Formats: sequence, C-alpha cells, structure tokens
Amino acid sequence: MILLGIDPGSRRTGFGVIDISSRSPRYVASGCIKIDASTLAQKLAQVYAGVAEVIAQHAPNEMAIEQVFLSKNADSALKLGQARGTAIVCAANHGLDVHEYAARRIKQVVTGNGGADKTQVQHMVQSTLKLSGLPQEDAADALAIALTHFFSCRGAVTMPAPARSTKQRSSSWRHYRP
Amino acid sequence: MILLGIDPGSRRTGFGVIDISSRSPRYVASGCIKIDASTLAQKLAQVYAGVAEVIAQHAPNEMAIEQVFLSKNADSALKLGQARGTAIVCAANHGLDVHEYAARRIKQVVTGNGGADKTQVQHMVQSTLKLSGLPQEDAADALAIALTHFFSCRGAVTMPAPARSTKQRSSSWRHYRP
Repeated sequence: MILLGIDPGSRRTGFGVIDISSRSPRYVASGCIKIDASTLAQKLAQVYAGVAEVIAQHAPNEMAIEQVFLSKNADSALKLGQARGTAIVCAANHGLDVHEYAARRIKQVVTGNGGADKTQVQHMVQSTLKLSGLPQEDAADALAIALTHFFSCRGAVTMPAPARSTKQRSSSWRHYRP
Repeated sequence: MILLGIDPGSRRTGFGVIDISSRSPRYVASGCIKIDASTLAQKLAQVYAGVAEVIAQHAPNEMAIEQVFLSKNADSALKLGQARGTAIVCAANHGLDVHEYAARRIKQVVTGNGGADKTQVQHMVQSTLKLSGLPQEDAADALAIALTHFFSCRGAVTMPAPARSTKQRSSSWRHYRP
C-alpha cells in the first residue's frame, strides 16, 4: 500500500510518497514539482504532468491533500484553487481516492501541536521517516499529509514519538524535478 | 477553424463551440456540463471528462475562457479556481492554446456595453449566431467568450450588429449533457 501526499501551490507543488505495507511507514520519495512555465495553461499542464509522473513511477493507491480554510485573499485563493484542482483531477483520472485533511489536523498528528510551525513539521517528518537530511519545506508538508492519512486510518490522534536512532539511511531523500 | 468557449463553475460549466472558417461565425454546439458528483475529486473528474468529450466531438483548435477579477470571497474563488484549473489543464493536455478575456471585454465585444447584463448577452449571442431559441445562461456566456476571441483576433472592438432576419435555423441549439 503506497500513499501519495500533495501540497499544491501556484509556483511549487510538493509531493511525498510513503509505503505503509509494514507496521511503520517507510519513506519512498519526495520532492517538488517546479512550476516555471510562462502561461497559466502551461503551468497547470506542468502540475498535471508532474503529478502524473509521480503516480506512474510509484503507483500510489490513495492520495491525501490539505483541506483549505482560507485566510488569504480571493486572488491567492483562485491561483491555489487552479493548482489544487489540477492535482486532484490528475489523481482522480488515475483512479486514486482523494482524502482531505485540515492543516491544523496535519500539524496535530505529525507534531502533537496543531499550531506547530513549518520547521517543527520538517523535523518530525525527518525523524519519523528516518531521513538523512531535513526535507525541503513543500516536500515535508506533502510527506506530513501522507503520514496524517496513514495515522488517521489507524485511528491514531497523534503520531507515535519516533524512536531515537543515530543510524540513518544514507540517501533516502532526494529532490525531484520532472 | 473551430473555437471552444468555456464558462467554468463549481456547479455548472458552460461550453460553446463556433466555426470561424467562413467570414461570419457559425454556431456548432453549446450546453452545460452538469457537476453533480458527491466528492470534490469526482466533481473535477466530471469537469475534465465533460471538456474532454466536447474536444473529442468537435476538435476545436483554440479555447477561450473568462479572465477572473474577483469580487467574490476567498471560498468562492477557491472553488471557481479548482473548476477553472481543471478545464484549462484539460485543454492544455489536448494541445489547445488557451486565451483569456476579462468579463467586461466580453460584454463590450458582444453587446457594445461593458456593463451589459446576462440577458442582453443571451440575446446578442442568439441573434449573432441565428439561434432559434435563447441559449441557456452558461452556454450563452461560453458562446460569448468564443465570439470575443474570434472578433478580437479580427481586431474588432465590438461585434458588428447582426443583420435582422426572420429566417432562423430550426434546430441549431441544443442542450448538452455528457
């Protein structure tokens, strides 16, 4: 069972893939789809192609994405909506079930604190998945969303504290650009 | 040369197809993709499949869509953005160029008045394309967007006043549900 987490944005879309076949979630891949085309249509095509490539490469069974409760202005909301809609429809077109989690719930599950900042999320994702380095911000958010889905399905309110270990996988995290 | 106009929405997405091979634009098809699925992913998949079906059926060369300047709240903007992004990425994935026109410009071109209401747009679309009946609101908007692209490419500021004629095509307009 493979889970895909997506953190969509109009300039960068983070993704994280975890394997939950065994008792502990295992890191598979993560990174950032860079959106640098000049027109809106080309930008959304980059998001779609990027998500489609991750799906083709890792064959996830389900996708999790952050639910949006907006504090931003309407213009940002429209741009985010366009990228978010594209990522979701790409998953739906590939037959994946899509699950949504509120930002507060993701932080609560991953760090034990619904008001945690991005650095705390990055550190908890790193230690839970035993990554050799701190994951990039968007990738960390996407992995956190996938972890939230995993622990929510298990009925956990917060993630178990990771076992402290000095032994880490050497090259488990890589930055991905399709 | 076939043009597709799209009027996206989170509950209904209007579309209009016109043929601009000859000097006057000719009506091909229009209608409304109804979005009634229960989950967001299924709704966006309906938009994508609906637009893809119109593209498959009429093989348009270009797409035109309304540019959004928002007066609505952030929540509406997010929902609109998701549907709009889905329609645009579907066109981009099918190799269509996408053109955006501001609502004011569309009304200006189609009715000669940037502040025209929906009924005026419906009537001008009906008379320009010699439709037997008044097109449904979303379909009329989508046809108006396609007409705006056509007349803008011709360098026209407003559409020429249609010739008055009592002779109308009998079954030129149909409501479409994929």
